[in-house]
Amino acid sequence: MYDLIVIGAGPGGYIAAERAGALGKKVLLIEKEHLGGVCTNWGCIPTKSLLNSAKHLVYGKEASQFGVHFDNPVFNFAEAMAWKDGTVETLRKGIAFLMKQHKVEVVFGEATFPGGKTVVVEGKSYQGANLLLATGSSAFIPPIPGADAPGVLTNREILSLESLPRTLAVIGGGVIGVEFASFFSSVGVDVHVVEMMEEICPMMDAQVASTLRKEMSGVTFHLGARVEMVGTDSVTYSREGRQTVIEADAILMSVGRKANTAGLEALGLDVERRGIRVDEKMRTNVPGIWAVGDVTGQSLLAHSASRMGEVAVANMFGAGDRMRYHAVPWAVYTLPEAAGCGLTEKEALGRGYKVKTASVPMRVNGRFLAEHGRAAGFCKVIADGDTDLLLGIHLIGAVSSEIIGTAAAFMEAQLRIKDIKEIIFPHPSVSEIIKDTCWGL
Amino acid sequence: MYDLIVIGAGPGGYIAAERAGALGKKVLLIEKEHLGGVCTNWGCIPTKSLLNSAKHLVYGKEASQFGVHFDNPVFNFAEAMAWKDGTVETLRKGIAFLMKQHKVEVVFGEATFPGGKTVVVEGKSYQGANLLLATGSSAFIPPIPGADAPGVLTNREILSLESLPRTLAVIGGGVIGVEFASFFSSVGVDVHVVEMMEEICPMMDAQVASTLRKEMSGVTFHLGARVEMVGTDSVTYSREGRQTVIEADAILMSVGRKANTAGLEALGLDVERRGIRVDEKMRTNVPGIWAVGDVTGQSLLAHSASRMGEVAVANMFGAGDRMRYHAVPWAVYTLPEAAGCGLTEKEALGRGYKVKTASVPMRVNGRFLAEHGRAAGFCKVIADGDTDLLLGIHLIGAVSSEIIGTAAAFMEAQLRIKDIKEIIFPHPSVSEIIKDTCWGL
Repeated sequence: MYDLIVIGAGPGGYIAAERAGALGKKVLLIEKEHLGGVCTNWGCIPTKSLLNSAKHLVYGKEASQFGVHFDNPVFNFAEAMAWKDGTVETLRKGIAFLMKQHKVEVVFGEATFPGGKTVVVEGKSYQGANLLLATGSSAFIPPIPGADAPGVLTNREILSLESLPRTLAVIGGGVIGVEFASFFSSVGVDVHVVEMMEEICPMMDAQVASTLRKEMSGVTFHLGARVEMVGTDSVTYSREGRQTVIEADAILMSVGRKANTAGLEALGLDVERRGIRVDEKMRTNVPGIWAVGDVTGQSLLAHSASRMGEVAVANMFGAGDRMRYHAVPWAVYTLPEAAGCGLTEKEALGRGYKVKTASVPMRVNGRFLAEHGRAAGFCKVIADGDTDLLLGIHLIGAVSSEIIGTAAAFMEAQLRIKDIKEIIFPHPSVSEIIKDTCWGL
Repeated sequence: MYDLIVIGAGPGGYIAAERAGALGKKVLLIEKEHLGGVCTNWGCIPTKSLLNSAKHLVYGKEASQFGVHFDNPVFNFAEAMAWKDGTVETLRKGIAFLMKQHKVEVVFGEATFPGGKTVVVEGKSYQGANLLLATGSSAFIPPIPGADAPGVLTNREILSLESLPRTLAVIGGGVIGVEFASFFSSVGVDVHVVEMMEEICPMMDAQVASTLRKEMSGVTFHLGARVEMVGTDSVTYSREGRQTVIEADAILMSVGRKANTAGLEALGLDVERRGIRVDEKMRTNVPGIWAVGDVTGQSLLAHSASRMGEVAVANMFGAGDRMRYHAVPWAVYTLPEAAGCGLTEKEALGRGYKVKTASVPMRVNGRFLAEHGRAAGFCKVIADGDTDLLLGIHLIGAVSSEIIGTAAAFMEAQLRIKDIKEIIFPHPSVSEIIKDTCWGL
């Protein structure tokens, strides 16, 4: 009898297992494929490894403005993929080490659920006082003719390509789509992004999204484009009644994710369209069964999953905690990077706040100017005019992904704009643009 | 009659002028040389511009591990200096624009002080209801034979070199010394740092300082070295009774700074050894005369000066505020970068806290691993075992300078370790190492 059985070793599951193990609980972690889940193996980590290679290529080419010159830039795709594989492998080993360190038992294999809190893996039964479902999500394949053909790539298959395509069509201009588009276009591939909406990345503040799209000047964006057919080497879409065919020797499907809920039927869970229903303690409707991460459909981000895992464990074993979604940052590791936390301007207006906003372009920031000159980028802060509370911070340019954690801290600590004005940021740093923008409110 | 006369247009003075101007006050800003002061012209900004060039050179050379290859790396010093000059010029113009925008009158010239709140510049007298002294600091030249010879460079002259020296001797291994050492050694100069203490950078946590020194493997460090003589092309030091002579065709003096208090005698201020005495409202002992920045000797950092300027203006014109030094971050833009906020372990022990610490190496961080592999670097968190309050965060590696603002926010908001554990950082980011380290406490 285990105190806790965790299904799925992604960032929700393995963090939960680690935290429970650290409390001295008897924990079993079941994984059908690789430790780290989609994040480590086919998501966050491999894409950031490849984008790191692309950034080195682009930065090397741009270095002459700083007095640094290189000849003959060459991108070796196989070597970049090998670096990516090495990074993934090291992190998987790191998770295995963490599990050992916290005395978490790990079993590999597909779990089946006969009912109750029993889990069967390869014929062997395991019993838990608690069951934590962290089964994640998979690429959603839309019901479009040809979309499910074997040649159509998802985030998984594209990470095993053996050579660079000449032309890549990306169906879906969300985070996954634009990151791959940024990588492939930076290394010389002709990339087309086909997006049904009139703008990419709907979770972004509209100004950030349009700036990002314009800055990704190597990519051709087809907006408001409804895909009608996917061929082996073409994508056909219509816009305002006119059909367009994009020829491409590789096609990436990245229109969304679907929760992995198949096989859980015997558990008697409330499963909604977006995933397993949970409360703020990460409890499902069945006592002793918990769910975290993408399978809940709540916030499809690795760091949300990890935090949900911590919340679930805290509630299971007495400390208590609750999941809060208002201060979850996101980051997109394109060239340039974009990041945000909290409400967009449109969301804030939609919720009836007396919205006040301020924006500061990055090119007035000393460090940005020293390192990027007059490149695009800005910080936008959204606040509640009635209470002076911070509602959202949105960034594009430089290392936005490393700065946005500060915004998450502000929102979690419920700081007001006047409080942020008193915080001392290091000079010169891009991060101080947050404070400077708050002074504009 | 001005509401406020500010003396010195560095980051203390010009920010104070801007804030007062934004309040509708009649403000005069007097500057003897260039808008931006030492920070913009001979400090933060030009050094970061040059270090940016050095980083591009080094990153380009290291890119082959990521599958990116360049031939014939060439560093063109004149072009790097021109980029640096362009950055400085743009920022100076930016400050001029800000002053105009906030209706701050700017007068260039050396100010003299006949007494009271009268200031004379080139024969013309100006009267202010308030006088804010932001006169900054200068390189301290120690009483060592030859130290004041015209060929010995300070942070000012070294930024106007016309060609790279073959060998550079840096006297003083503080922040200014190690940043120049990092730049020049990265672009191929043979650099020697001579430091009287047994470790570089005394404000750093000891583990960070020793890691930084080891990582700057292109630099020869001479520690515990008492400089006895500075020649035109040599530095002689003694250590444990043995003399060593370093031959160098350029010598940088960077042993410290001294407050610029000369010429203020008629004002009747309390001037201590380190600078003008001020209280937490930035008031001097003379009503209506205020002082901020390096001239107070309190925290010789540009961002401290700016905050002091804001505090002074808030107290002058009614809003009220007080300067707090416990949450002032610092960053050193060497390769690798280092940054910190709050107490070092040694300081925390010295103040009698029941110190608990945790460290996490950066090579277990997913993004760091993807972008830097197994390079050195770590995060160290220091907390009070009795109250769980955060006492200090110290970082080395990656973009530490952009992450440390988060620590400043934590300390200003007086978060406890248990609070930080609940903050959601973006994954993958180096910034999440702060949370991970807190989980080790």
